[in-house]
Amino acid sequence: MTAKVKHSELRQLVCSQLQILLAQGNLEGAKALLLPVQPVDIAEAIEGLGESMQAIAFRLLGKAEAIEVYEYLDSTVQQTLIEDFRRQEVLDIVDKMSPDDRVRLFDELPAKVVRRLLAQLSPKEREATALLLGYEEDTAGRIMTPEYISLKENLTVTQTLERIRRLANASEIIYYLYVTDSSRHLKGIVSLRDLVLSDPNKSLEEIMTQDLVSVSTDTDREEVARLIQRYDLLALPVVDREQRLVGVVTIDDTMDILEEEATEDIYALGGVQADGDNYFQTNLVTVARKRVVWLFVLLITNTVTGTIIRSQEDILQQVVTLAAFIPLLTGTGGNVGAQSSTVVIRGLNTETINNLGPGPIIFREALAGVLLGAILGTVATVWAFWLQSDWFVAITVGVSLVAIALLASIAGSGLPFLFRHFGLDPALMSAPFITTAVDVLGVLIYFNIARLVLGL
Amino acid sequence: MTAKVKHSELRQLVCSQLQILLAQGNLEGAKALLLPVQPVDIAEAIEGLGESMQAIAFRLLGKAEAIEVYEYLDSTVQQTLIEDFRRQEVLDIVDKMSPDDRVRLFDELPAKVVRRLLAQLSPKEREATALLLGYEEDTAGRIMTPEYISLKENLTVTQTLERIRRLANASEIIYYLYVTDSSRHLKGIVSLRDLVLSDPNKSLEEIMTQDLVSVSTDTDREEVARLIQRYDLLALPVVDREQRLVGVVTIDDTMDILEEEATEDIYALGGVQADGDNYFQTNLVTVARKRVVWLFVLLITNTVTGTIIRSQEDILQQVVTLAAFIPLLTGTGGNVGAQSSTVVIRGLNTETINNLGPGPIIFREALAGVLLGAILGTVATVWAFWLQSDWFVAITVGVSLVAIALLASIAGSGLPFLFRHFGLDPALMSAPFITTAVDVLGVLIYFNIARLVLGL
Repeated sequence: MTAKVKHSELRQLVCSQLQILLAQGNLEGAKALLLPVQPVDIAEAIEGLGESMQAIAFRLLGKAEAIEVYEYLDSTVQQTLIEDFRRQEVLDIVDKMSPDDRVRLFDELPAKVVRRLLAQLSPKEREATALLLGYEEDTAGRIMTPEYISLKENLTVTQTLERIRRLANASEIIYYLYVTDSSRHLKGIVSLRDLVLSDPNKSLEEIMTQDLVSVSTDTDREEVARLIQRYDLLALPVVDREQRLVGVVTIDDTMDILEEEATEDIYALGGVQADGDNYFQTNLVTVARKRVVWLFVLLITNTVTGTIIRSQEDILQQVVTLAAFIPLLTGTGGNVGAQSSTVVIRGLNTETINNLGPGPIIFREALAGVLLGAILGTVATVWAFWLQSDWFVAITVGVSLVAIALLASIAGSGLPFLFRHFGLDPALMSAPFITTAVDVLGVLIYFNIARLVLGL
Repeated sequence: MTAKVKHSELRQLVCSQLQILLAQGNLEGAKALLLPVQPVDIAEAIEGLGESMQAIAFRLLGKAEAIEVYEYLDSTVQQTLIEDFRRQEVLDIVDKMSPDDRVRLFDELPAKVVRRLLAQLSPKEREATALLLGYEEDTAGRIMTPEYISLKENLTVTQTLERIRRLANASEIIYYLYVTDSSRHLKGIVSLRDLVLSDPNKSLEEIMTQDLVSVSTDTDREEVARLIQRYDLLALPVVDREQRLVGVVTIDDTMDILEEEATEDIYALGGVQADGDNYFQTNLVTVARKRVVWLFVLLITNTVTGTIIRSQEDILQQVVTLAAFIPLLTGTGGNVGAQSSTVVIRGLNTETINNLGPGPIIFREALAGVLLGAILGTVATVWAFWLQSDWFVAITVGVSLVAIALLASIAGSGLPFLFRHFGLDPALMSAPFITTAVDVLGVLIYFNIARLVLGL
């Protein structure tokens, strides 16, 4: 058996080796180390260096590789390098980046720097960049690349292959070729696969696919990503309001978008504001800002729970043991609700429950809530009786648990639908929120059932 | 301005139209409706039908299209159709599915049905399927397709293009060609792009890429997906222990894997067991089973909190108002901890914090916890004083909140690292778990600070 090394371990080895070589001032060694390494891994290794070392390491790279590595670097490191470099060096790199990567960089830079850089780009690149920057953030227009190959429908397969050989370097994608008419309207798509497999004398018109999926420049980037995923595409054409082809979104961006969207959902579910920045690279004040808003909302909800408990001081003073079961009841209720909201929110965001309306889903969750409540309530009743030897308290706890689980399921599954109905992000109905909201209702139910059962 | 229709709305229209036409018995109309619709959308429309209608709708499709649609269908619907169909019809479809999709279907079918189907497949397909079924679940071997094009290195570009024309239909992917030696060792990769752009007389050896990324058959599918994403590949070769090429994992599977993994993480964070099944298509008992385990664990933790509160009955009876602040303190602590664990778990799972060790992360979270605790503690102190006009209680609440927030941050950020260290899924340190665990510690801290401040 051969020893198995995971790719991630290899990469960490490169990172630490690079640090050592640079600390020793062994630049030739560092250069040799990076030679067989993939650009994305070089970018990671550079990100792991101290700020002063980053520029030194970056200068070891050949020109073509430097551009590729630069595109992969995190935006904060990209900025550091821009500040460290002499003007001409920066310009050379920025001018050669692909327009969509360049726009992603510009989004992070101060407006002043962007204006200066834009003014110094070559006219063609400036135009391409300005076009993308003109579209709103998180839309297809902003993430597309204008570097694709478009051809006229009367070209033959042989002519097309010749044309591609000339155009390939100016295009980010050559696996799909776009057939347009004289006013740039998209007529069809020919894949490189179809082209290679077709009779060389056929025209593009004869072999192109005409029922095609396209999006407009203002389509949300998440929808773009979902369409590429759904139809197993390598790229998706973007058209403007007049149906003219203006760009292409490629699959590699898609994967990053879906991952970012999943992170945003997870953050929202955990009660952390997500704004696309890397949480681990922002400063403490930003971190606090991202988290404090939710905590305040929840603090206020919690004081409501406290107020309710205070208003029941009379019953608590009579039966102090009731207080001991509050965490169990509200905690379990919160957890049942959090489970329901989690599955519903994920279902909504991945479009897996779009076919079913809210009715059947909430009903099913309510049934699950009663079932879970009954199982847990039985256990809790036995446990409460064992602790207190008081059937009234034990029954109060058990019955309350069923009622709270039912209610928590309905709230957990219903609120995300309600939020979406009003155009809000369903993920705002996060586990922390449901947990806290159920607390309020939980103690209300508990004390009222206690009054009923105990006859207070 | 043109009216904008979202793709998802169009798809829902097809679903409802199909239902109406089938209910009217208008089979010709249904057939016409589905003609311009993409296979994946037809699959969705069929999934939306009642069980009896699904087979009828499916029979409307042409043979080639039926296979494509079948591959996209949810596994429960695939099973229903298998049961409804006559043996030969089933076999025709199953025999023509691509091997990786077939294996995904077989994973869901009863073992008896799988054995029967396997025995009746054509020899070539049987062999391919048995090969994949031999690898463990969730590994590269299980999800790869054995349908790729491999070529010898001495072929010229022209010869290769001719060869591809013959082989293309037997391959799931032709954008990458794999160059192997006589014992099937992987020597290099030629992309269709390189092939089309190269001098026709060059040999594959001259144009192939040699520093390539590959995985072995037992590599975890999530690692496979992350590598494809990281290196912007369209496919990743899979080699066996002797470094022989045995299959290829394609990018379209990658996106689904990453989405499933994100769903599993989100479910785990919400306290729901994830096993890859579609939550909304499993029955209530399965749903309860997926959720009850966690709820029990949390119930037990909650009873510990309850026990602690009961043990403090002496202090509670003296200062009943202390009870009113328990939900606020434990709730806020739980939420702070949930935030920390959320960002750390997501960071670990997307490999964005692998470069940094646990130390700096936990330290940073602890600082954030103190900062957030101080902000919220100040507010809580003022609020508590306003309610009770008792500085001792107010200060107890404020100081407790800072201590609880600090502790919750450390627990929330540290426990995922600890779990990963022991080879467990960090996502088990979910928001519900942290929330509940912090409850226990929260009340302990609260009552002890109360004893100190109130001098009880």
